[in-house]
Amino acid sequence: MDPMLLALEEARAAAARGEVPVGAVITDREGRVLGAAGNRVEELADPTAHAEVLAIRVACACLGTPRLPDCTLWVTLEPCPMCASAIGHARLARVIFGAYDPKGGGVEHGPRLYHRPDCLHRPEVVGGMREAETASLLRTFFKALR
Amino acid sequence: MDPMLLALEEARAAAARGEVPVGAVITDREGRVLGAAGNRVEELADPTAHAEVLAIRVACACLGTPRLPDCTLWVTLEPCPMCASAIGHARLARVIFGAYDPKGGGVEHGPRLYHRPDCLHRPEVVGGMREAETASLLRTFFKALR
Repeated sequence: MDPMLLALEEARAAAARGEVPVGAVITDREGRVLGAAGNRVEELADPTAHAEVLAIRVACACLGTPRLPDCTLWVTLEPCPMCASAIGHARLARVIFGAYDPKGGGVEHGPRLYHRPDCLHRPEVVGGMREAETASLLRTFFKALR
Repeated sequence: MDPMLLALEEARAAAARGEVPVGAVITDREGRVLGAAGNRVEELADPTAHAEVLAIRVACACLGTPRLPDCTLWVTLEPCPMCASAIGHARLARVIFGAYDPKGGGVEHGPRLYHRPDCLHRPEVVGGMREAETASLLRTFFKALR
């Protein structure tokens, strides 16, 4: 299964829980899924419980190490600065994200952390993967809130 | 007790566990301690288990909310971009840190997240509190590693 489809499933499950619909998946070098999570900020009362952070924690627990150097993170939305920096701490090789986030993103928007000369770990980045589906999920969620 | 002294205790306990010695404490408007934690990245095999993130999680669990708008975070080292952004997500009112971190910091160094015009939440910041003690603890730790 395309990991981004699994991330989209996690995002839809997050929406069903009343969370901002973002989902993330981590795969290893062979494409095996090490972790998958959706946003749980409200449920866990934890502002750090973004999908990316939860998926990183699960994958690290799975491997028993705080570093994931051969792994790829798939996420439905451009990571915020917290998550972009966490991805660096985890030494992930690659980040593949869906929708761009001009307001809250930290990869291609805002501080653009991996583009900075002082960046300590710079993963390969692919943005806009399945952009129509991932962006539409977020638009639908926020439209329903208004 | 000065919360920074408690944060220093947490940092020393982290060093004793073989972790980079950083400690953090969160206090509420009345100065009551809601959470205190030291770095546990290696022990938990979790790259996001910085002292600040753990203290935020404990304080949020204590109050049952993902936001800490009237609270202050005390930390022995300038927060990295992950933690600086997590502090913003938690809507903390104030950040008081000890040693400056020219290489890994994200508040007064690197992306200087709260100085950016696109910053969504800008806490009050005081840096250099008990700088001699907090910096000396880190220097001693890293000297022993070499």
